[in-house]
Amino acid sequence: MEPVKKIEIITNSVELRKVLEFLERVGVPGYTVIRNVIGKGDRGTASDDIEVTVLSNVYVMTVCTEEQVNEVAEAMRPILKRFGGVCLVSDAQSVIH
Amino acid sequence: MEPVKKIEIITNSVELRKVLEFLERVGVPGYTVIRNVIGKGDRGTASDDIEVTVLSNVYVMTVCTEEQVNEVAEAMRPILKRFGGVCLVSDAQSVIH
Amino acid sequence: MEPVKKIEIITNSVELRKVLEFLERVGVPGYTVIRNVIGKGDRGTASDDIEVTVLSNVYVMTVCTEEQVNEVAEAMRPILKRFGGVCLVSDAQSVIH
Repeated sequence: MEPVKKIEIITNSVELRKVLEFLERVGVPGYTVIRNVIGKGDRGTASDDIEVTVLSNVYVMTVCTEEQVNEVAEAMRPILKRFGGVCLVSDAQSVIH
Repeated sequence: MEPVKKIEIITNSVELRKVLEFLERVGVPGYTVIRNVIGKGDRGTASDDIEVTVLSNVYVMTVCTEEQVNEVAEAMRPILKRFGGVCLVSDAQSVIH
Repeated sequence: MEPVKKIEIITNSVELRKVLEFLERVGVPGYTVIRNVIGKGDRGTASDDIEVTVLSNVYVMTVCTEEQVNEVAEAMRPILKRFGGVCLVSDAQSVIH
């Protein structure tokens, strides 16, 4: 197993394309997206009611190296600032295959 | 980045309102909910088949401070005891924005 | 709270049954499955467009003991090798109930 940094981003769906473009630019090799996530944050509640689908949240998970973490964090900061959301970094071990 | 405690709760959908009410009472500032999660626990299997929708699970993720962890854990215990489920606590760093 | 190993597996939906069968064989007591997850990995992009539903990903989360981790990792390796995907192991505390 190999030590990695796990990154979890929860933000507004409208920002998904920007988040993924950025991850690709940093060189993160893959990501997982869970759509239609609902939540409450410091900017209010995002539900998956039909009326507010456009404001629903997404959950993006990816792993990166220790060296990439700061670059990812810096990139997420303005997105989180504008739309709310969370970006969490934690330690994990990845099974090598 | 700021150290936080990440809390993940997987429990029966019918308990969602109670879980969220409690998180608000403890002062947790936000949460993310993924609905229609399926799983198997010590109380049997929850699937998202139409027949058993009422028994489907939810996944709730939130972050809190070191000081709030025990209060959240204590509050989840009776819910988990009654309906099964899991409450995991782990360390993470949150990007400040 | 009790220390556990949290295991997260993201792989092709067609492998779900095999992953769950294996977890049961190892004696992991429960798991959570989030279906229709989309992502990009080293094998290309899995989207949830109707055309490629059969190739969509699943997210499986479970907890196990320190002793079970290696067995789970070894079992996931060939599945990840064949279909791509990720298996992450991290430390967590589980609320006892």
